Amino acid sequence: MFTPSQVISTKRDGKELSKEQIRYFIENLMTGEFADYQASALLMATYLKGMTLNETVELTRAMVESGEKYDLSSISGKKIDKHSTGGVGDKVSLILAPLAAACGLKVPMMSGRGLGHTGGTLDKLETIKGFNTQLSRSEFDSVLKEVGTAMIGQSKTIAPADRKLYALRDVTGTVECIPLICASILSKKIAEGANGLVLDVKVGSGAFMKTKDQARKLAKTLVQVGKKLGLPIRAVLSDMNQPLGYAVGNAIEVIECFEILSGKHLLPWEGDFCSSDLRELTIQLTAHMLEVAKISHSTADARRLAQKKLDDGSAKEIFLKMVKAQGGDDSIFRLSEEKIAPALLNKYHLKHFTISAKKKGFVSKMQTQDIGECLIRLGGGRMKVSDQVNGGVGLLFHKKLGSQVKPGESLVTIIYDAKTCTPTCLKEIESNLSHAIELSTSRKPTPKLVIEVLK
Amino acid sequence: MFTPSQVISTKRDGKELSKEQIRYFIENLMTGEFADYQASALLMATYLKGMTLNETVELTRAMVESGEKYDLSSISGKKIDKHSTGGVGDKVSLILAPLAAACGLKVPMMSGRGLGHTGGTLDKLETIKGFNTQLSRSEFDSVLKEVGTAMIGQSKTIAPADRKLYALRDVTGTVECIPLICASILSKKIAEGANGLVLDVKVGSGAFMKTKDQARKLAKTLVQVGKKLGLPIRAVLSDMNQPLGYAVGNAIEVIECFEILSGKHLLPWEGDFCSSDLRELTIQLTAHMLEVAKISHSTADARRLAQKKLDDGSAKEIFLKMVKAQGGDDSIFRLSEEKIAPALLNKYHLKHFTISAKKKGFVSKMQTQDIGECLIRLGGGRMKVSDQVNGGVGLLFHKKLGSQVKPGESLVTIIYDAKTCTPTCLKEIESNLSHAIELSTSRKPTPKLVIEVLK
Repeated sequence: MFTPSQVISTKRDGKELSKEQIRYFIENLMTGEFADYQASALLMATYLKGMTLNETVELTRAMVESGEKYDLSSISGKKIDKHSTGGVGDKVSLILAPLAAACGLKVPMMSGRGLGHTGGTLDKLETIKGFNTQLSRSEFDSVLKEVGTAMIGQSKTIAPADRKLYALRDVTGTVECIPLICASILSKKIAEGANGLVLDVKVGSGAFMKTKDQARKLAKTLVQVGKKLGLPIRAVLSDMNQPLGYAVGNAIEVIECFEILSGKHLLPWEGDFCSSDLRELTIQLTAHMLEVAKISHSTADARRLAQKKLDDGSAKEIFLKMVKAQGGDDSIFRLSEEKIAPALLNKYHLKHFTISAKKKGFVSKMQTQDIGECLIRLGGGRMKVSDQVNGGVGLLFHKKLGSQVKPGESLVTIIYDAKTCTPTCLKEIESNLSHAIELSTSRKPTPKLVIEVLK
Repeated sequence: MFTPSQVISTKRDGKELSKEQIRYFIENLMTGEFADYQASALLMATYLKGMTLNETVELTRAMVESGEKYDLSSISGKKIDKHSTGGVGDKVSLILAPLAAACGLKVPMMSGRGLGHTGGTLDKLETIKGFNTQLSRSEFDSVLKEVGTAMIGQSKTIAPADRKLYALRDVTGTVECIPLICASILSKKIAEGANGLVLDVKVGSGAFMKTKDQARKLAKTLVQVGKKLGLPIRAVLSDMNQPLGYAVGNAIEVIECFEILSGKHLLPWEGDFCSSDLRELTIQLTAHMLEVAKISHSTADARRLAQKKLDDGSAKEIFLKMVKAQGGDDSIFRLSEEKIAPALLNKYHLKHFTISAKKKGFVSKMQTQDIGECLIRLGGGRMKVSDQVNGGVGLLFHKKLGSQVKPGESLVTIIYDAKTCTPTCLKEIESNLSHAIELSTSRKPTPKLVIEVLK
């Protein structure tokens, strides 16, 4: 057998860990034989020396086997999931899961909470009164079977090794490491029983991967490892140099999603808010899911089906069924247009304040990570896992990259809780946002929404 | 202020840590703010990215300041210490400390226990009935003042950060890292109040540094860092491609040392045992201590003084005074020649067995680490800090590198405890030793005892 020191030294010296060494590491980490301080030394050695494709495959496999593996074979249909590497205003899942279900897929979606500058699907769903993201295994199966999608938090029984490793990586400077990110993402998706996966790898100022090269490397590794593990998979590189859609927050992102699902304007605030990038990306990602599932045999077919199911209200109906099946108050969404947003927001104590442009120009840059950090300042995001989130607060962007701006025109509306956000705090957020949105005298080319698809 | 992750990431990215970051790390490690798993990630990053001279200086300083610093200024004379990086049969300290004291120095020596294949001074001293290596601070001062040398274990109050870091390094594959080794050695020596230091950096098959390049690099760093911290220092690179002297064990090494101190043959076993390398290295290292202390102004003078104090019995008298002052039974050493070794060994249940040469030839290689590991098998060394050591067992080498051997001539005598060493165990040790001592048909050049001196 090995000792922990031998495993650590092998990676430290840049050599390939054997399947047995990786298995030994993960198994003994879970029993406590391999101490946390040994795991973190191995994580740092891995960060600095990398992992081969085979090592990444074996690490993913060992992490899957550290916990329960859901068998969804008794539920008919292809179980296809989507995973985003995280962004600001990235609310795609709330539209995509019911849309893909409306197109005939089963979407068993386990999501996370917001952490750092990026938001999380669970926080958004939980702004809907009664919505339960902690379903039991049998409730999950039953919602998935009846509705076509179920959206829950990660079960503690799924890939517990990932939970342990992630907590260590978070505090030891070893988060941004492609093989570790890859094993973390794929182990959870494989263990939850997905038959196929579409990855939305974000790139840009609001993403973890700031450059296309990094994002492409991650996407390539994810696709290669997924394939080696027998998972039909593809990865979409999408732009995160500005918030996706117009809303950044929790309840207000639910409103933006329901606007797209229902085709209606629901926002009680004035402004020229634009969600076309959100709608387009959701349709594209759903179409890729249909292709991965082999339900559609061409991109054009897949896209047409997704668009149809969005426009004819099928996706909205599934969204409402899911809300109800998971204990949420779906009646809110059945109110007349002007009442939906107030009904979702009335439990919060919100005020709003709009920042206007001081000069004319074109929006040339949005420091999107800084924007995400403004949401944390407002109380709508988390620095630490244990932080509480205010579901009502947020930011509404009146302009997108490339938009022309006249002096005095609205740039962004801050929705804040006057009880927790002091005038000083509000001033700081205002200043940070003013710096985060840059104007130039000439219009610069806007980034492509979808940069590349890796199959 | 910094977060632990920021400090770790700085080193991870190969950047220089500031004095403040290093201080923050050590201080918070000791309060528990910086967790063990964060320290081990930083240790691995340091192993792989190295440290500059300034970082190593600051790390050493912070480790000194993590505990008590002995002020020996009330004791007259220059306080000079010697430190060896560890070897097999390296018993120099037992002769050198009293010899240097006989030459007019004060030698405040804090030593370690044997670990892995290398022996430790404390285990050897403790084979002397009553010898106490755990003196209180005032006892230590008093012995040092009265006798000229005191030999004790490392106080828990001295450089506690080193103790903590060393325990982590030992189980995370981060032991062999020059800046960390350097800070570990120097912090303890500076904290114990030494005014000067001579380092014996071992190189060869029985040393931690297997190559001259590694050993030279370590020696150079030690000398540079010591100087930056105001410590007069020099480093001697010495050969460890064979055991030093003829004895490898605890009590039998004490016997070999007392042979050199007394100029008499004491060993109750027959053989052509040779200690000339041990004697020569001890004299050279003592001479360097005299030069570091500026007591002697030329190497020739220093050497002459050391030789004189060894030959005229002054060093022996100080050894006996120290044994008595530290509670040991000095009367054993005052017995007639033939009774000394039996008196030291009679508490053990020893048998012996001699391995003879099966062919003629010249001793061309000694796998010295393997020899050290045979001592562990015999029960005379430790795998883990908590292991108990049998002080009586050991190995006596009848030949040195380059010795001519006839078939049937004795190579090595195994002194074992028949109660713990089964016939199978003895067979295995015999086989390992036979492989460890290699014979060739022609005489190969023998390694130089002292390879280089770095000032």
